[in-house]
Amino acid sequence: MTEPTFSHLDDRGNARMVDVSGKEATKRRAVARATVLTTAEVVAAIADGAMKKGDVLGVARVAGIQAAKRTSDLVPLCHPLPITSVSVDLSVDPAPQGAPAGRAAILIEATVETVGQTGVEMEALTAASVAALTVYDMCKSADKDMTITDVALWEKSGGRSGDYRRPA
Amino acid sequence: MTEPTFSHLDDRGNARMVDVSGKEATKRRAVARATVLTTAEVVAAIADGAMKKGDVLGVARVAGIQAAKRTSDLVPLCHPLPITSVSVDLSVDPAPQGAPAGRAAILIEATVETVGQTGVEMEALTAASVAALTVYDMCKSADKDMTITDVALWEKSGGRSGDYRRPA
Amino acid sequence: MTEPTFSHLDDRGNARMVDVSGKEATKRRAVARATVLTTAEVVAAIADGAMKKGDVLGVARVAGIQAAKRTSDLVPLCHPLPITSVSVDLSVDPAPQGAPAGRAAILIEATVETVGQTGVEMEALTAASVAALTVYDMCKSADKDMTITDVALWEKSGGRSGDYRRPA
Amino acid sequence: MTEPTFSHLDDRGNARMVDVSGKEATKRRAVARATVLTTAEVVAAIADGAMKKGDVLGVARVAGIQAAKRTSDLVPLCHPLPITSVSVDLSVDPAPQGAPAGRAAILIEATVETVGQTGVEMEALTAASVAALTVYDMCKSADKDMTITDVALWEKSGGRSGDYRRPA
Amino acid sequence: MTEPTFSHLDDRGNARMVDVSGKEATKRRAVARATVLTTAEVVAAIADGAMKKGDVLGVARVAGIQAAKRTSDLVPLCHPLPITSVSVDLSVDPAPQGAPAGRAAILIEATVETVGQTGVEMEALTAASVAALTVYDMCKSADKDMTITDVALWEKSGGRSGDYRRPA
Amino acid sequence: MTEPTFSHLDDRGNARMVDVSGKEATKRRAVARATVLTTAEVVAAIADGAMKKGDVLGVARVAGIQAAKRTSDLVPLCHPLPITSVSVDLSVDPAPQGAPAGRAAILIEATVETVGQTGVEMEALTAASVAALTVYDMCKSADKDMTITDVALWEKSGGRSGDYRRPA
Repeated sequence: MTEPTFSHLDDRGNARMVDVSGKEATKRRAVARATVLTTAEVVAAIADGAMKKGDVLGVARVAGIQAAKRTSDLVPLCHPLPITSVSVDLSVDPAPQGAPAGRAAILIEATVETVGQTGVEMEALTAASVAALTVYDMCKSADKDMTITDVALWEKSGGRSGDYRRPA
Repeated sequence: MTEPTFSHLDDRGNARMVDVSGKEATKRRAVARATVLTTAEVVAAIADGAMKKGDVLGVARVAGIQAAKRTSDLVPLCHPLPITSVSVDLSVDPAPQGAPAGRAAILIEATVETVGQTGVEMEALTAASVAALTVYDMCKSADKDMTITDVALWEKSGGRSGDYRRPA
Repeated sequence: MTEPTFSHLDDRGNARMVDVSGKEATKRRAVARATVLTTAEVVAAIADGAMKKGDVLGVARVAGIQAAKRTSDLVPLCHPLPITSVSVDLSVDPAPQGAPAGRAAILIEATVETVGQTGVEMEALTAASVAALTVYDMCKSADKDMTITDVALWEKSGGRSGDYRRPA
Repeated sequence: MTEPTFSHLDDRGNARMVDVSGKEATKRRAVARATVLTTAEVVAAIADGAMKKGDVLGVARVAGIQAAKRTSDLVPLCHPLPITSVSVDLSVDPAPQGAPAGRAAILIEATVETVGQTGVEMEALTAASVAALTVYDMCKSADKDMTITDVALWEKSGGRSGDYRRPA
Repeated sequence: MTEPTFSHLDDRGNARMVDVSGKEATKRRAVARATVLTTAEVVAAIADGAMKKGDVLGVARVAGIQAAKRTSDLVPLCHPLPITSVSVDLSVDPAPQGAPAGRAAILIEATVETVGQTGVEMEALTAASVAALTVYDMCKSADKDMTITDVALWEKSGGRSGDYRRPA
Repeated sequence: MTEPTFSHLDDRGNARMVDVSGKEATKRRAVARATVLTTAEVVAAIADGAMKKGDVLGVARVAGIQAAKRTSDLVPLCHPLPITSVSVDLSVDPAPQGAPAGRAAILIEATVETVGQTGVEMEALTAASVAALTVYDMCKSADKDMTITDVALWEKSGGRSGDYRRPA
């Protein structure tokens, strides 16, 4: 078993923003997901609203897009990046596999692209997380037991370390 | 079954920041938690570093504290609040209950207090989420399969709706 | 004719943020409006979208709410204020009075409230302006000749200087 | 009559930040204008101040330059852009054509340049709008009936869609 | 000799934002100063400009005022505070006492007030520092050897710890 | 004696962000330093803490790194830049040369790199200044007479104007 290396720490263990100036600028893309677990009633009301009026998913989408652009301001060792596209998709799942009985889900998938020297995993994860927090904020008056779960990288392409797809 | 109400939507379903000017300013406190699941090797290296040098948990703590102060800038319908204290505690669990085999955990608990007209749940959840994203960022070169999970409100006190403690 | 006084300038003409610590904290409210003039086709497409799918007005509403909270960060001499509510209403007018022939309008009205020592005119005007800029951004691929016009304070209450209502 | 297309909406009508990674990076320039209408007395005092002391136009200039850099943080679907120059010119017009009787004007013109994949219209319009809001803030103690008007793109060059000059 | 205590560290040495909710809200004021040392030529040009045209001191003043409002966003353990006034005064000293031969000075004094539970030392020091950095930025094409020096708290009043005045 | 030129002012003395679009994008690097003078007791406690627990230097390091990324938001005429690396080193000097008797020092050195059209002096100076302000904030309960001093550019490379090294 080899010891993991933390590229954000120098050899004394101090945090730093690593030098990426020697890396090639390539097209990079990352997809991240998050899930908000809540009651079936809340999910039904959101789904109903999405059809005829409601702003819950629309507000969360905007919050996620804006958060992607603020990633390097929130996560201390992230590089500022010229993001070229962001999309945040939200959908509902009334009976998610593996969830506790009676819990339904709002599913969030954020996709971020850039042409740059570092990947956009953190941007996609930040977009998904902030979209999830925004859903939470809008629904918390109706359910105090919500959980944000399964915030994870789903796919990644571009860059020297090769493509990644989350194992099933 | 009564239909859930969304206080952040007006009667046409449009988003708004709800009026809290009539609510009493009371002392309010919220505790939120998040978990980062990664390999036992990464957790061991972080724990080791925490003893003799490492900045992973220290950087995540600062990021979480700063994120608490930026909550109303990130979550569109949150009120700006005069936060009076924030702490973010991080610890490691080499064998977390219920986690997939071989996965170890970094546990995050954020506590936020204010004297104000609305609660600080979102501030505590945002602090925990951004601390988790920061841990993720610093460890992603060592593990691409990390997951942020169980982001949830743990306790809440103050305000008209009464105290809350997450059911076991 | 008396010379106007500029409370944001000291007696040497230098900018400063004026001292409000001696002013009473009262409930204050301001309503501001803005208009985006564009083609009848764009307005019809937005109105149609608002019924069945579209995000133009929803995105602008979120942008306006968030901008209200950032007013003191944008307008240098504004005081930071604990905003207690913000709403941004958007509607369309296919044939606005006084507009050039063939131009239709998106109408924006922002309402901001606080309990504080200074008024919220600038917060309401900033919300309306940024909502208008966001509408502009989303429609500019369809009309390059848009104009944002009639950005003005409509009503104001609270504070020592008395209530204000824009003359007809 | 063809239906206008909104490039910021996907085919379900959901907001997104459009992908610009395939567009060529070219030199781009945009000029936007805004007008603040106020009393002749206010305009005279500003003009007088501009000669011997005053900070009104200077503060508005700085606010406009800083706002240009924050455009993608304010307007949700704007791309972050490496702005290469910003200037904001302010002047006064004691008797503007077409204005209501007795109203004088502060004229604002913002010019923004970049070498990038999208235009800088929104940056120029945001700079002009925030400079206008700053003038408003500094003069509102002297005139409650001010209006910000004629916020519009004046010229644009660079990019695939060709040059633009506002029709007279 | 007693060991100094660091109120921003908990008993394990971890950073936290200390709880101020039990402290009394009183009127608080802080004055901080900073000095920029540069050549006599640069100082003469700034002083000359200040009389007839120049924007160097005016731009620095605006930057300092805005920075005071962003203190809790920059300094991780600072509380957000409802600042009630900020002023930043800049002047020149062609022959400052104690400076190296041939060096002249731009003197900066920032005054910040609030009614709150913590002092505004950091706000005043941040305003003075950012005003100094802005002077540096505008003059660096004319002098590469500039130094920012003597950034210090000058006076402080309000709060339980009593008034402070810097010893001569 | 030639009159110094201020590239940030146009020929009327008005502030502007200068056009850098014609400048070559080259690798650029800047090193800036700052010193915090305080008591020997505070420095000893920090040094002791740095060995076994303390967060003072770690928190200041993170604050400095984040501030480097926010330079163009703080210093009005700075260009936004794609920073490729930042490191902030902190150390203590119990008996700094030239300091008043009994004063010890925390030494800060910030290094910033980019590949771009303008230098990163301001980014390095801002990182060093904000790290110093953060040290000040964490130690002010133990020493009210602290001073931040000797904030200066130490080295600079890349760009047309040639390399720079501060004279001894």
